[in-house]
Amino acid sequence: MDWSAIAALLAAEGLEVIQDPQQRQKLSTDYAHFSPILTEQLRGKQADLVVLARSEAEAIAVILCCVANQIPLTVRGAGTGNYGQCVPLQGGIVLDLSPMQRIVSLEAGRAVVEPGVKLGKLEQQAKQMGWELRLLPSTYQTATVGGFVSGGSTGMGAVNYGTLFDPGNVQSLTVLTMEAEPQRLVLAGEAAQPVIHGYGTNGIITEITLPLAPALPWQEAVVSFADLSAAIAFAQNLANQDGIVSKEISIQGHPIPQYFSSLKNYYQPGDHWVMVIVSALDWLAFTELAKSNKGQIIFEQNPQAPGKKVNLIEFNWNHTTLLARAMDSSLTYLQVFFYQDLEQILTLEKLFQDEIMFHIEMMRIQGAMCLAGFPLVRFTNGDRLEEIMAAHQNLGARIANPHTYSLAGGSVQPLPESQLMFKRQVDPFNLLNPGKLTD
Amino acid sequence: MDWSAIAALLAAEGLEVIQDPQQRQKLSTDYAHFSPILTEQLRGKQADLVVLARSEAEAIAVILCCVANQIPLTVRGAGTGNYGQCVPLQGGIVLDLSPMQRIVSLEAGRAVVEPGVKLGKLEQQAKQMGWELRLLPSTYQTATVGGFVSGGSTGMGAVNYGTLFDPGNVQSLTVLTMEAEPQRLVLAGEAAQPVIHGYGTNGIITEITLPLAPALPWQEAVVSFADLSAAIAFAQNLANQDGIVSKEISIQGHPIPQYFSSLKNYYQPGDHWVMVIVSALDWLAFTELAKSNKGQIIFEQNPQAPGKKVNLIEFNWNHTTLLARAMDSSLTYLQVFFYQDLEQILTLEKLFQDEIMFHIEMMRIQGAMCLAGFPLVRFTNGDRLEEIMAAHQNLGARIANPHTYSLAGGSVQPLPESQLMFKRQVDPFNLLNPGKLTD
Repeated sequence: MDWSAIAALLAAEGLEVIQDPQQRQKLSTDYAHFSPILTEQLRGKQADLVVLARSEAEAIAVILCCVANQIPLTVRGAGTGNYGQCVPLQGGIVLDLSPMQRIVSLEAGRAVVEPGVKLGKLEQQAKQMGWELRLLPSTYQTATVGGFVSGGSTGMGAVNYGTLFDPGNVQSLTVLTMEAEPQRLVLAGEAAQPVIHGYGTNGIITEITLPLAPALPWQEAVVSFADLSAAIAFAQNLANQDGIVSKEISIQGHPIPQYFSSLKNYYQPGDHWVMVIVSALDWLAFTELAKSNKGQIIFEQNPQAPGKKVNLIEFNWNHTTLLARAMDSSLTYLQVFFYQDLEQILTLEKLFQDEIMFHIEMMRIQGAMCLAGFPLVRFTNGDRLEEIMAAHQNLGARIANPHTYSLAGGSVQPLPESQLMFKRQVDPFNLLNPGKLTD
Repeated sequence: MDWSAIAALLAAEGLEVIQDPQQRQKLSTDYAHFSPILTEQLRGKQADLVVLARSEAEAIAVILCCVANQIPLTVRGAGTGNYGQCVPLQGGIVLDLSPMQRIVSLEAGRAVVEPGVKLGKLEQQAKQMGWELRLLPSTYQTATVGGFVSGGSTGMGAVNYGTLFDPGNVQSLTVLTMEAEPQRLVLAGEAAQPVIHGYGTNGIITEITLPLAPALPWQEAVVSFADLSAAIAFAQNLANQDGIVSKEISIQGHPIPQYFSSLKNYYQPGDHWVMVIVSALDWLAFTELAKSNKGQIIFEQNPQAPGKKVNLIEFNWNHTTLLARAMDSSLTYLQVFFYQDLEQILTLEKLFQDEIMFHIEMMRIQGAMCLAGFPLVRFTNGDRLEEIMAAHQNLGARIANPHTYSLAGGSVQPLPESQLMFKRQVDPFNLLNPGKLTD
């Protein structure tokens, strides 16, 4: 392929095209370095061109060019995913939609946005109207809405709203098909399901409608426990309180809190933390519950107040792994959906001792509170990692493998046939992020 | 007792005293006529005097008079309870707190009110600020906040917030003790537990602090099903949807809807109804769920719109029994906390056929969605009613007996020792609603 000619062609249509190798490399990566396996597998994968689109019309121009020349096209937002979602396995063009930053409408309970809108900016504007996003990943300050819907699944708010897959949590998506005559499909409700968490393999999202949650006055806190069992019991107890509204409940087992350097003054070695964002309206009931569970509230702050010390969500979800790896790059992680109970966790603790550390997020899944595991793992080699995962599976602690770039490989269930059918329909030449849907 | 003298004494202190026998009778009753058993047991129970209090100072005057003369004192609000909560078993004085109607403060997320404030009025004022009550009984238009906290337990909102007993749902209560020198206790959080649903046996509530829920734009709907199993499956499925926010989900099995005369144009004999109040933001996902569950949406309305046809909550909770009895006074009801599963319900259906009709409310209890039964029962005699209740218990469908006026008798668990201790402390002469706490 004559990439200079393609670049010239696109530039002639007014598009911003990046040819600089360093910039292309930067815009061909995400946080897949969380996984030493993916780091190896994705090494050197790089776009031949990066194209920035500021509008749907510009995105269509890129589609036309790619279909005409049978060029693979991989869409990216801010690149905060961690399974190589936006890494172009076969090179070709990376289409960066982050310039599509228009908030089309923001009304009570509903936001319509272009894919490049940053979650943090949308959250901030929604808050000014008394609303907030239902689900927010720990990367929200930089992540885009389109990237979250394409590559993410949940985050803060999971204790109430579950995941992006739950009907209602994405109201509609507008996607462009990868055809010689691109169609603009408006997929509302169930019809949008094949595109959610689809890694951009089945349509290019140009508009997203999300429901909003009413904003409550929140309070952030860290509750410390002398043993892991007590921390887990409290987290479950809190999650199942119907009169205490929470928005985030995580367990950070010893010694994970040592990696939270901006909270180091609060950490006593040996302690296990439960980190929460809870309604300030229910604060008294929360403190009484912590006390009766023998937990000690060692940190609290009003996140709405000016001059807050830290941002609690930025210690949780994928940020836990990020912070731990910033201090010890030999660490990696797993995804356990879900730990069945405390006993299973204690069995795993005995089995692997210092080799794993328990980071658990409370999530509501089909109405039931679940213990979603994101344990940190001290990496030695790939075989040992496989062994650890197999031991989890054997005990019934199902693994969603974060060490694979394929959607099918990372899922706990086979991909639905409807998703594969949809793929064939919207991307007949298999040009969208090829190699990511199935192995 | 010289009741005229007592009346004169109280009147001299500026209190409004009612001596008229008909009025006294009216103000000594509630909806206990739902139960033919209670109707018999409570027949003729009547206050010797009814006193109205407009302020805490007036309530204290009544306490002083009752303690000095060892007169039983039974507090009432609007009398919308249905276990004879406010019926004075031993006569004496009924203290009507409904004139204490001051909304002390109403701010974002929190209401402080006197006990006589009507739930409907508070709800209306909160809505104007974008908030609403977490829990609202079907009687809210006439019921008082004090009456609800003293004699009620839950209602609309139970799918999210559980019951009044759940920590957080009552923030604090101010109560007067029944002593020669009445104390004014401010009971916050856990300390208020012994007073909630205490039938006014352990202190006289003069102020209530309730948390509020953010108000969403709601939509009301009736979904019709050809068979009971499908209706129950849909109700459970909807209740467990994390991305579809509901506020009320009830099952009205055939032939209960025939008693809803204002909805008679929508009823096809044989149909089973699921009545819901669901977030309008999630309407599309809701309709798709109804469709995939083979339910037909036969009625829908925006309850916020002017000129709405009916008020959906007024067909549910205790209003189901109320409406059914208005057309057929041979009906009574049970309280099943909870049906364990569909199979148990179908076993009971087979066992009792036309003798019972299934009215089920979805409730969240310690994080799990439960099927709370309020089945209508065709009453023949007391022995048969006992037999029906025993059959439920034997199958593991626990009964909270609504045919007893004692708190202990109607509870599924023994009263906590803390409640009995609190009783002795605040009412040393056992003058508050005597006979109601235990048999």
